[in-house]
Amino acid sequence: MAKRILIIGGGAAGIGAAGAARGTDPTAEITVYTEYQDAAYSPCGIPYVHGGEIPDFERLFLGTKQQYADQGIDIRYETAVEAIDVRAKTVTVAGRPVPYDSLVVATGWDYGRPDVPGNDLSGIYYMKNIREAMEWDKTLDGVRSAVVLEAGPLGMEMVTALCHRGIETHLVDPSPWALSMATDPDIAKPVQDSWLEMGATLHFNTKLEAILGDAAGKVRAVATSDGEIACDLLVVCTHKEPQTRLGAAAGLTTGSAGGFIVDETMATSAPHVWAAGDCAEIPHGVSNVPVQGLSGSHAYAQGKVAGVNAAGGKRAYQPVYVPWGMVAGKWMIGGVSFSETLATAIGIPYVMGEAQGISRARYFPDMKPVKVKLLAEPGSLRLIGAQMVGGEGIKERADFLAMAVRTGITLRDLATMENVYSPPIGALNEPIAMAAQNALSRLGS
Amino acid sequence: MAKRILIIGGGAAGIGAAGAARGTDPTAEITVYTEYQDAAYSPCGIPYVHGGEIPDFERLFLGTKQQYADQGIDIRYETAVEAIDVRAKTVTVAGRPVPYDSLVVATGWDYGRPDVPGNDLSGIYYMKNIREAMEWDKTLDGVRSAVVLEAGPLGMEMVTALCHRGIETHLVDPSPWALSMATDPDIAKPVQDSWLEMGATLHFNTKLEAILGDAAGKVRAVATSDGEIACDLLVVCTHKEPQTRLGAAAGLTTGSAGGFIVDETMATSAPHVWAAGDCAEIPHGVSNVPVQGLSGSHAYAQGKVAGVNAAGGKRAYQPVYVPWGMVAGKWMIGGVSFSETLATAIGIPYVMGEAQGISRARYFPDMKPVKVKLLAEPGSLRLIGAQMVGGEGIKERADFLAMAVRTGITLRDLATMENVYSPPIGALNEPIAMAAQNALSRLGS
Repeated sequence: MAKRILIIGGGAAGIGAAGAARGTDPTAEITVYTEYQDAAYSPCGIPYVHGGEIPDFERLFLGTKQQYADQGIDIRYETAVEAIDVRAKTVTVAGRPVPYDSLVVATGWDYGRPDVPGNDLSGIYYMKNIREAMEWDKTLDGVRSAVVLEAGPLGMEMVTALCHRGIETHLVDPSPWALSMATDPDIAKPVQDSWLEMGATLHFNTKLEAILGDAAGKVRAVATSDGEIACDLLVVCTHKEPQTRLGAAAGLTTGSAGGFIVDETMATSAPHVWAAGDCAEIPHGVSNVPVQGLSGSHAYAQGKVAGVNAAGGKRAYQPVYVPWGMVAGKWMIGGVSFSETLATAIGIPYVMGEAQGISRARYFPDMKPVKVKLLAEPGSLRLIGAQMVGGEGIKERADFLAMAVRTGITLRDLATMENVYSPPIGALNEPIAMAAQNALSRLGS
Repeated sequence: MAKRILIIGGGAAGIGAAGAARGTDPTAEITVYTEYQDAAYSPCGIPYVHGGEIPDFERLFLGTKQQYADQGIDIRYETAVEAIDVRAKTVTVAGRPVPYDSLVVATGWDYGRPDVPGNDLSGIYYMKNIREAMEWDKTLDGVRSAVVLEAGPLGMEMVTALCHRGIETHLVDPSPWALSMATDPDIAKPVQDSWLEMGATLHFNTKLEAILGDAAGKVRAVATSDGEIACDLLVVCTHKEPQTRLGAAAGLTTGSAGGFIVDETMATSAPHVWAAGDCAEIPHGVSNVPVQGLSGSHAYAQGKVAGVNAAGGKRAYQPVYVPWGMVAGKWMIGGVSFSETLATAIGIPYVMGEAQGISRARYFPDMKPVKVKLLAEPGSLRLIGAQMVGGEGIKERADFLAMAVRTGITLRDLATMENVYSPPIGALNEPIAMAAQNALSRLGS
């Protein structure tokens, strides 16, 4: 009899799981439940449609509904799963039990909702669903002034996008600088300076105290510890919280980061149940501390691992080192694992080196600055973190440095790395090597 | 008494050695001899001035003559060293002995000159010296048709540059495809196709048989195994041969690649004599076979190691894995160490994986294709080579993969690498990871 594989969630993790399960077991019955009208679009593209860099929402869809049907993946749209019974091996849909042999929980995340008066007004935008984003995009045409709440990755993209759109933009963030969980202030500064050049107003160290409405129940301002800011729109970009209600009610164990605890096969605490994506937590490779709320490529890769195993195959997921990167303001910014701020906060000792390099030969048109900052374990000099801000090549360097952290590459290795030198694509001195050399020179070695 | 450090050669290696020696020993007397009028300009930029991407030659100079004088580096321009006496520890300049405590030989390379009739005609361009390049650039305004001899790195840049300049361009190469010592035909093909689109004519598997002149002794055509090609200019881009005459006459040992044999400190066979850059040969990290004719960044890094050691410090140079990359035609192309062609030719077994990926989210403007091909050692699956062709991020990936070869990273590591996913800078699936996954899938694992 064909294996029955159920997947709860139609985001990157759920769709990754479905495809991988199909590849592993061509005869399995694979069903995906999603509460939304669509599956497999790229929510990560939404800020760029709002900002005008991507011309329309249609191109954010990854595949047509027919393509999934053709692969034998049965996606049930606008269908909520109401309960999971891990002993009976069923889920409840429309009040009726549906049996499974393997279950993948990929229920994703939700925003931390601001617990302040006025949080039920209209004009508060939680960016997630593409159909809603299409409606909000029309609204943006009439918005004169917007507040973005918190400069996490999405908030940084939205400040940038709203400035591009010509909207008066305020950032309100209780932290002292942008993306402070991942960056040091010297790395965030060029981005913040460029937001100011683009006309944004930045309110750091500032708490949201209330959302103020007009007579029609629509946002007219926010009250903050830095005073009142008039706005037509509040974009909430708070931390992604794992959506675990359904699984937790069924007894799946959650951990210190709030996500489902999984082993290296993405298996949960319940037999025949896997979890993947933003509802799960994964150990960080350096600190071994569980982390969650990673990127869409993490969700997709975890989904694939869960899908292979759910279908009877065997694949392991690795601890994460979390390369990250984005365009923010007029810069690219990125890194991996620990900043000085984070390492200090959790008591991890480090040595540091930094360098201001360039992306092409100094005389080549469109040469861009590339600043690199490296953190390493004292003694072994194994890399434990990196941050970069610059004009090009940040993503590829972050990927490299994440593998460097994972495989134990040291500052000595990086200080003597070879690099491509070709005027239109690479400078004589690679900024990563320069930063490693700087660290060794600070150590007097 | 101050240590007397003499350096023969004012290119990247010689200037790197001078700067590093100064940093190591602030009191040393440092003298650099160069036969040219200038030192420390970037010859690598010359093709881009010819092609019109860089507006003038002046910006190719790295520093002014005064800057070197201010650092206490005495550069003797237009000064030939006539002999080296390693027992007396002197060099001969203008017939007189000049004593040294440490000598760095950085005499560079020269083109393999075509041994065919007519090789003494005018209109044959060997690109190297910047003053000569400035004169040739004026000549280019009157050139209607040019032949580029051999599609090594410089030849690839020159075919591209001459097409940009609007000159009818022919490539003549005895090899079956472009850069065949480093690439496989599938990787070279997009570049070759783009040259055709740009109007070039490609003559592969074609031998130069003679250079034909007019009554004034100027090139009017080349005779080849593919027939006669009319041209006003022949640009010779043959292999870089190490220039060892001076050192070999003094007894410095040369090796199988024709360069000076050096140890990891860049010391030659003679005491107190170091060599660096294109006149030296360095073991390849995978095959242990000596190689030479590497990039300007290799020459500069080798010069720095030689300079530190010549000044009494201690620094080691690593075996090389040779990341390479360039813009050719409408593409970026690059890689590290072994291609299938080269591995097969020297009998190195390998497994292979390849993937056609993209550089940004598939829906993001200016997304570019990125093809990656990986070679690994059977069994251990340690990476031994990579090739790429694509639209962006080739240099940074080549640097990464060179470090991966050096540190023993495997296809399994790369197949599970994390990657930055952010629509304007990185795709959901990293092409390197996809190629590694493809290799594992071919192996059935």
